[in-house]
Formats: sequence, C-alpha cells, structure tokens
Amino acid sequence: MKNESSSLQVKDIGEQGLLAILQRFCPQEIIGDDAAVLVTTPEQSWVVTTDVLVDNVHFSHVTTSPEDAGWRAVAANLSDLAAMGATPLGITVGLGLPGDISVNWVERLYQGMTECLQKYNTPIVGGDIVRSPVTTLSITAFGQAYPHQIIRRSAAKVGDAIAITGVHGASRAGLELLLNPEIGQNLKDTDKAALITAHQRPQPRLDVLPILWNIFNSQSQIPNLKSKIAVAGMDSSDGLADAVLQICRASNVGAILEAKHIPLPPAFTNWLTPEQAINYALYGGEDFELVLCLPPDVASALVAQIGQDAAIIGTITSETKVLLHHENTEIPDQTLNLNQGFQHF
Amino acid sequence: MKNESSSLQVKDIGEQGLLAILQRFCPQEIIGDDAAVLVTTPEQSWVVTTDVLVDNVHFSHVTTSPEDAGWRAVAANLSDLAAMGATPLGITVGLGLPGDISVNWVERLYQGMTECLQKYNTPIVGGDIVRSPVTTLSITAFGQAYPHQIIRRSAAKVGDAIAITGVHGASRAGLELLLNPEIGQNLKDTDKAALITAHQRPQPRLDVLPILWNIFNSQSQIPNLKSKIAVAGMDSSDGLADAVLQICRASNVGAILEAKHIPLPPAFTNWLTPEQAINYALYGGEDFELVLCLPPDVASALVAQIGQDAAIIGTITSETKVLLHHENTEIPDQTLNLNQGFQHF
Repeated sequence: MKNESSSLQVKDIGEQGLLAILQRFCPQEIIGDDAAVLVTTPEQSWVVTTDVLVDNVHFSHVTTSPEDAGWRAVAANLSDLAAMGATPLGITVGLGLPGDISVNWVERLYQGMTECLQKYNTPIVGGDIVRSPVTTLSITAFGQAYPHQIIRRSAAKVGDAIAITGVHGASRAGLELLLNPEIGQNLKDTDKAALITAHQRPQPRLDVLPILWNIFNSQSQIPNLKSKIAVAGMDSSDGLADAVLQICRASNVGAILEAKHIPLPPAFTNWLTPEQAINYALYGGEDFELVLCLPPDVASALVAQIGQDAAIIGTITSETKVLLHHENTEIPDQTLNLNQGFQHF
Repeated sequence: MKNESSSLQVKDIGEQGLLAILQRFCPQEIIGDDAAVLVTTPEQSWVVTTDVLVDNVHFSHVTTSPEDAGWRAVAANLSDLAAMGATPLGITVGLGLPGDISVNWVERLYQGMTECLQKYNTPIVGGDIVRSPVTTLSITAFGQAYPHQIIRRSAAKVGDAIAITGVHGASRAGLELLLNPEIGQNLKDTDKAALITAHQRPQPRLDVLPILWNIFNSQSQIPNLKSKIAVAGMDSSDGLADAVLQICRASNVGAILEAKHIPLPPAFTNWLTPEQAINYALYGGEDFELVLCLPPDVASALVAQIGQDAAIIGTITSETKVLLHHENTEIPDQTLNLNQGFQHF
C-alpha cells in the first residue's frame, strides 16, 4: 500500500521488479535459490519448490501434447530439487480447468506427469482441482537433503571450476523445429527427433547427485567431511548464461567461460552459424542441466564420471562480471548479461 | 486415453468424477484427507496441502478486498493442516497475474496473507510469479505432526461423540450480506459486522490442537499413550454437513446429529427462519471449524476447555447414513446428503 506504487501495473515493473517488492513479505534467508530450504532437524532438511504453468504462456497446443506438458512441468520441478542437492519425495498438483476441456486431455496430462515421476520414484501426494477460464497447472515438489550437502547459488568461490552436466541449446532448437518445421529440412531425421525430444522430454539431472557426493566422500582425507562440502550451483532452466550470472551475482564473484568448451548438440555443426549455436546454448533455456561450481579436482572427477557431454566450461573469478572468451579467434571477450534472458512479464 | 472418456468434457463428470479418474495416478494410501501425509521418520510426519483460487470463481472484487482474499487463502490452507493435527511450517505461493493488474493489488494480497501467517508464525518460503490472463493464487502449506497424532477422516468409531469447535453459518451469512446488503436492514450493525468478518477473516483452529493433545495426555492412565490416540476429523470448509458425511463415508459409519445442539450465530435468532438458519449452518461452508469424532469423555473435556461456541452435536452410529434429529418437534429425522454441498464444476 505504498503510495508510489498505487498506479503502477505489474507489466510496468516486470517480474524482477515485482519479486523485489514481494520479497519483503518473505524471510530473507530462504529466498534466492531454485527451491526453499526448511531445516527441520540437524540431520535432515526439507526442500520445497513450486512452479505455475499457464496455457498459451508456458505451453502451447501447437508444440506440446498434454503428455509432454505434464512431463515438462514435473521435470522442471524435479530439476529445481536436483539443483539444491535434494532427493524428491513427492509433488502436489493444483489444476485450474475450463469446464469444456476434455477429460481425455486431463488424463493425458497426468499420464505425462506420472511417466516422469515414475522414473524418479516420486508420487503425486495431493492436489486441488478447480474451475478456471484458463488451464493452469501449479506443481509443488518436496525433497529432502542433508543440510551439509545443500547446493546454493551463493557458495561459489574464486578459483572454482564451472562444470555443466550436458549439452545446451538442444531444447531451444527443438522448440524452433516444432514452431517452424521448414528450418529443419537439411537436418537428418534422427538429429531432428533428438532435438525435439530434448525439448519435449527434458531429464532432470538427479542422477548427478550420488556421483557428486561419492566423489566428495572418496576424495576426503578428513574423517568428518560434513562441514567441508559447499557446492555452488543451480539448474540451467532459464539458460546457461542466466545460471552463471545468477550464481555470480549471489556469490559476489565473476566468471570467465571458454566458448569452445561449451558442449553443443552435434547436429548444430552444419546447421547453425557459430553465433546462432552459441546463442542457443547460452540463452535458449530449458535444458535443465546442472551448473556447478566446484574445486577443480572435484569438477574434473565429476565430468569424467558423468561422461557424455559433461564439461568444465570456465572458472570463477574475483571480477564481478561474466566474460565469454573465444580462444584462438579474433572475437573479443563478450560480457554476458541477464537482459538477453526470458522475462515473464 | 481410455476410449470411453475421449469425448467427455470435465463439466460432464464434475469434480468428483474427475477426481475418481485422476486418483489412479496417485498412491491410494495418501489420498482422501484434508492434506497428504508423508512420513519421513518414526517421530515426525510431514503434512502437505494445496489450494488453487481463481479470480471470479473463488473470490470476487465485489465481496473481497485483496487483503481478505490473501487472508482467506492462507486461512483455508492452515485450516487443512489443523484438520490433520499438524503445526504449520511454511507456505509457497504460486501467482498467475495479468500484466495490467496493479502492483498495489498484489502488495495488498501479500499483506493479507502475511497478516494471517504472522498470527501462526508461518513464513512464505517460496513461490512463483507468472503471467496469466486470469489472476490465480496457488498456495501449498506444509506442516509437521507426530505420526500418532494425525487426525484422519477414516478413524471415526461407533459411539464417538461428534464435537465442533465453533458456530456454523456465520461465513455464509456474511457473504449474503456482502452480496445483498438490503437483507441486513433489521440486523444490528455489530451483528452485521461480526458476520461479515466471519466471512472475510476466518480463523483456522490451530489453537484447538494443543488443547486436544493435552486432554489425551492428562486422561491417560497408560504410561505410553502414543498408540491409543486415533482422532477422526476434518475441517468444515465445505460445510458442516459435508464434513460429517465425508468422515462417515471414509470411516464406513453413520451419524445422528441433534439440530438444537448445533451452535448458531446469535444474530440468526430474529433474522432468519429456523430452516434458513440450519441450512446456513449445515451447508453454508467456509466456517473453517474442526469437526472431531472422539470418545465422549474426551469430547466433553475438549468442548469445556475451548468454551465459546464449541459443542457436541451428535454421535457416530453403525448405520451408514447421517440423520438430523429435531428434538421435541414434529419434524421427522432428515437424511443429509452431499448433493446439497458445493461442486466446483
């Protein structure tokens, strides 16, 4: 009820502006990560994350079947748990539905949610179904983590290696192919299908967590390692550049990324210009990989054990900006910024 | 994707029909109460509940200020926790907003949520804000309970007394007064204000829980009482009749209610006909009191200690129907049914 905001509309201040205003209603210490942490006992923390998806804003009947909409919604929430170092325990589903939507559509949505959930042994534990003029899907996911293993955006340290768990840009390329099939005429069918699957069925990287904890445990010379783990990270749901920028902002550090170390889908090589390819990778979003800042030896071991397209793509620096370096080229370093990312309003 | 449902629309089968279909995607043991229980340790259970509220369906600019919409949304969720015997730990807020909604409206919504939350020391721990053509508020609340103290709909036993924690019908009367102010012209201003407040600022009955557990502990002659507590109950958010019917259905029992023992707001006496008054109390909804089935001695002690308008209104019976008995009148017993309650589609 501050006077200066009485005539403002939400679209005037955007998502970040509104968040800044509303955060004063929330405890400061639990804001700012992919999910909220509620520590209940010294041995166990509960981690909670929530997402709202609206028809024609977050999914579209053109590019998304109800099964895929369900899968993607669940995957996004489980990815937020993975990004906190948490193992999922269950989700609740809040559904707003127009009366004239087909029952079959709703069943197929639940089918897609369940397919993703079953892969990670996670049940739907509750929900609410209400009438709404627009189809709306609100998912809240709960997980548990050991308090000393929680991954936070604010824990990056100068000298950390920046490791990513897979290729970036594939989801965005898949979306473009769905929206404009003609752009894919020079692509092999298998490549096209792989990119579209990356968009429709993203995989939350919960599989990375046991590998990570195992490396920490095996590398430790110290009997009680618990206080020594401080992994920084988040997922790349809003894009790889966004993830690195958010971590750097929260940790008050900077980063230098090596463009040629960022793994791209092989199909990009003869299909996109190098500029398009790196733009999809940095700003495409929805790849749901983990971006982790780790001591270099831990990062090397992690990348080796994940295999596939995991890679070390850069280093945390003390200068509070994020530079993209192009090795062996004439291209000068570029400073990345958040304005190229996705804004909700 | 069953063939028989492919042409059906959600409005054809209603909320209960859709729930019946979707429940096959959820584990059976955690469905059917006000909230879901996730047992994590033998000593502690996590309880989770979620509600979705849609503009013009669940709140209206005519009857509800943004502060009241926020308060009511939080109160409904905290009431679901109370109905499970759980103490709140935090909520997440998912918000869908049109771009042209005023920032002030959103701030006032959060102000109302916070006012209710602060009364119960409960923080907003996370959320999501997205663009949507219709204002939508999804709240998920988390609480904790001792596993042996969880209140379930399915635990009512023949001979239990049915205790309620306060008057019913006030919220519905308040709503009618807001929609049709002229019907209140014979009411005192203070009575009118009290009924409207009952609608705008319902109080989740978390205060009842410590009283209840204290009675159980003090009455026990057995050193380890833990296994002896099996309270049945739910809240009366969808109406008192609905609560009794749901408990009886889940417990496979029946009930007889004494009409004259159901506490009504004093203002009803010279304002409504007896039929209107009992209808508001039974079917009005949104009073957010607790309806508990307890051994008669525990129920008596509880009602005495809560005071105010708590009352024992009936008894659990073996015949699986719910009868309303009118003592000392010519009116025959009435069989209550759910069809008089509120359906979302």
